[in-house]
Amino acid sequence: MSDRDLLDGTEPGPAGVRDLLARATELAAGAEPRTFRGASVGALFLNPSLRTRTSLESACAMLGVHPIVLQPGLGTWDLEFRDGVVMDGAYAEHAKEAIPVLSSFVDVLAVRSFAGLADRAADREDRVLASVRALSRVPVLNLESARWHPLQGLADQATWTRRFGDPRGKRIVLTWAPHPKALPQAVPNQVLLSAAMLGMDVVVAHPEGFDLEPDVMDRASTLASEAGGGVRVTHDPATRFDGAQVVYAKSWSGSSFYGRREEEASLREASSGWQVTGVPAGAGFMHCLPVRRNVVVSDAVLDGPSSWVQEQAAFRLWTVLAVLEAQLGGARWPSA
Amino acid sequence: MSDRDLLDGTEPGPAGVRDLLARATELAAGAEPRTFRGASVGALFLNPSLRTRTSLESACAMLGVHPIVLQPGLGTWDLEFRDGVVMDGAYAEHAKEAIPVLSSFVDVLAVRSFAGLADRAADREDRVLASVRALSRVPVLNLESARWHPLQGLADQATWTRRFGDPRGKRIVLTWAPHPKALPQAVPNQVLLSAAMLGMDVVVAHPEGFDLEPDVMDRASTLASEAGGGVRVTHDPATRFDGAQVVYAKSWSGSSFYGRREEEASLREASSGWQVTGVPAGAGFMHCLPVRRNVVVSDAVLDGPSSWVQEQAAFRLWTVLAVLEAQLGGARWPSA
Amino acid sequence: MSDRDLLDGTEPGPAGVRDLLARATELAAGAEPRTFRGASVGALFLNPSLRTRTSLESACAMLGVHPIVLQPGLGTWDLEFRDGVVMDGAYAEHAKEAIPVLSSFVDVLAVRSFAGLADRAADREDRVLASVRALSRVPVLNLESARWHPLQGLADQATWTRRFGDPRGKRIVLTWAPHPKALPQAVPNQVLLSAAMLGMDVVVAHPEGFDLEPDVMDRASTLASEAGGGVRVTHDPATRFDGAQVVYAKSWSGSSFYGRREEEASLREASSGWQVTGVPAGAGFMHCLPVRRNVVVSDAVLDGPSSWVQEQAAFRLWTVLAVLEAQLGGARWPSA
Repeated sequence: MSDRDLLDGTEPGPAGVRDLLARATELAAGAEPRTFRGASVGALFLNPSLRTRTSLESACAMLGVHPIVLQPGLGTWDLEFRDGVVMDGAYAEHAKEAIPVLSSFVDVLAVRSFAGLADRAADREDRVLASVRALSRVPVLNLESARWHPLQGLADQATWTRRFGDPRGKRIVLTWAPHPKALPQAVPNQVLLSAAMLGMDVVVAHPEGFDLEPDVMDRASTLASEAGGGVRVTHDPATRFDGAQVVYAKSWSGSSFYGRREEEASLREASSGWQVTGVPAGAGFMHCLPVRRNVVVSDAVLDGPSSWVQEQAAFRLWTVLAVLEAQLGGARWPSA
Repeated sequence: MSDRDLLDGTEPGPAGVRDLLARATELAAGAEPRTFRGASVGALFLNPSLRTRTSLESACAMLGVHPIVLQPGLGTWDLEFRDGVVMDGAYAEHAKEAIPVLSSFVDVLAVRSFAGLADRAADREDRVLASVRALSRVPVLNLESARWHPLQGLADQATWTRRFGDPRGKRIVLTWAPHPKALPQAVPNQVLLSAAMLGMDVVVAHPEGFDLEPDVMDRASTLASEAGGGVRVTHDPATRFDGAQVVYAKSWSGSSFYGRREEEASLREASSGWQVTGVPAGAGFMHCLPVRRNVVVSDAVLDGPSSWVQEQAAFRLWTVLAVLEAQLGGARWPSA
Repeated sequence: MSDRDLLDGTEPGPAGVRDLLARATELAAGAEPRTFRGASVGALFLNPSLRTRTSLESACAMLGVHPIVLQPGLGTWDLEFRDGVVMDGAYAEHAKEAIPVLSSFVDVLAVRSFAGLADRAADREDRVLASVRALSRVPVLNLESARWHPLQGLADQATWTRRFGDPRGKRIVLTWAPHPKALPQAVPNQVLLSAAMLGMDVVVAHPEGFDLEPDVMDRASTLASEAGGGVRVTHDPATRFDGAQVVYAKSWSGSSFYGRREEEASLREASSGWQVTGVPAGAGFMHCLPVRRNVVVSDAVLDGPSSWVQEQAAFRLWTVLAVLEAQLGGARWPSA
């Protein structure tokens, strides 16, 4: 474990997050990044990636650092993360060997591991990320886990800050959206936390049954009230965007559906009317990408002037650059 | 779109191509490349690659630049390129999001996308490359598309220039060859264009039915006559190499065979006699590689003194190095 | 072929190996590596890798060198290594083209190619490695072949040297261990050679039938007696660890089992009692990793104080760094 892990985005503390956002803004404006020649970042991708991987690699290049991209199952051994098992099956290597070894070869260890949506306890415990954190000797960077996506959170916060100056009190509607597949909650959880931390007025809109985990909702409420904002829920698609200054769309599978996948699928299909086909005048449309066009959101919204998705995605580079600069820079989180 | 795209190899103009070849020759002789520390080249491989990928990566290393290799479907989302579709199928991400985002993270965006040989219109329009070009904010580098392979073209031109000084009027026979699979026309198209640009005397030899696209033939004829050369076709395998100074072998599927794959296969199998088993005295044998030994060409020719394939392949490094130096260098194509 | 190939780890000669180990120790202690900016190492992985690939990439980063990782069949053409074949099947490219071309793009060519365990002659000749060596124009680095794993050998030697000062006469028991799959002999061969070179007292313990190749046993005996050590075999699991200062576990398939896979599987299953569940007081437990927990060795041993596997794995970085520094440095092996 390290003092510079970034797991759910709250580790740097409120002042540390503000410092990271300020540094990301400077870097986006052309400030010279620090360099760390000879250093390496190991990146373990247990799931696919485009933006996260490319922005990570590009940021590494700017820092003079080499990114090592590993994809277990695609040229690297599949990893076992459970304790005490007899390893006579498909997994050739245990994390207990792999993670300490990897972390002895690199300066930061980054990992992506989505929720499996099969074992609720494993997803709630964020088992892979927790295991990597416990076993790594170098700072850990979460590239999206079962529960969190802190680099997306920072890019979103940078976008809100650029658009609003101080985002406090601005209304963001985080809306569930249709999708052909059951998806994890990492992004909605992160949006909740990131917006709550900045004191935004957060509305979570979703069909009945698609609740996020209660502890995440509680944590967001606490963070929001500390920062002068709030969190509430609506199930009404007709009025969900009332007063919204940001509409943030994302599909997810409700916490109640573990073990009830067929029911989830039929409810999901019945909720195709939740597609975002317009946003209030002046509001921005956001999505973490990749997005299913004309399923999650219409072409008209994505290609229209209210879409902020490109700006939001472009911040992925500057925020991960600021994070890596801090993690490689040797100290604790500046303000933590 | 950018003023420094390299799509079919003609963008730099005749003088610009000469400059690139001269620079490639200098670099091959040991000239120091410029450096662009902190920069990244994104390379999207929708198809396999050995030479193109390795020479690209090695050239990047020489320039102090980091190559980011992405393989959609292998750790990166499969990309949708069609407009207006409802994305409820296999494709998780649309090029309209992916390409602008990627191009905001890198300094050059390179892409490989072979012809699908199923939809003639899509192949003729070079749909993926055209889409990437339209959506990218940074210079685009074609790593072989449905229609063109400009980096192969430059390496071939460098080989002819080294061998002949001025290649004008030298006879090159671009010959169809047997192969177990139906293959795209990108390489024969490119050889045609590259040889025509330099005023060579081009003979295209192929069995009846294996015609290249008429517009490509016309374009090559025009370029050849402007440069003092010519283009003609023969269907006679017995006399095809008469007077040849270069024999360039490549298999391809004829433009007439879209929708008639079985007929193509039977004609292809009936043409196994087109294998290259010898070349005229003094002539060089060329092939873009990879090559099927003892199907396209015999071991004796490939391993004999008339084979130029290694020299040709070695130029892939120096030409892509010259191209990237120009694309990263910030200006238009020098002479365009 | 090059004077700086590293194929079985004996190429640098005894003094050269001592130099490499000394340099690895310096580097582990913080000595600055040389730099070779603009250079590239091509790494052809025909099999999966975690430690080897990550330590190679990290070492490259320290040297200012770019590693190009290629995985034939995963985005790169499958390679044919046999001579004289008609290539009308699955292999798109022959090593005779691929290897010289690759080696014209890079400064060191590294390759991993495990034993197939189907064709004994091919495995004994180490056909892929031998072919790469014959065709490459730059130094070849073996990342584990059918017969040898020299980078593991150097890391093991570094571990013994740190633990023992001079390992001469120390007793190492290389013990066969259970595993769900038939595995190659590269690692046990290498352990034999590496320990023999340093004059250790080597005991090879395995069930009847699981013999290593006789020529490897002979070579190890000769090396050991030249260096003041010895090699003997035991088939008794009860007494195998008597007097051991190192227990090195590894599963392998015996040389006698080519063509008798089912017999091998049944004997293997009958030998589950060979699992390592304890080591003599004061002895260290070693394994090359990845390791099947509670099949090859118990959790208690791996997680206990006698386990040297992390120290051993950590040396993989410093030894490959010393090797690459020498291979890129332009000369012969210092003392060869």
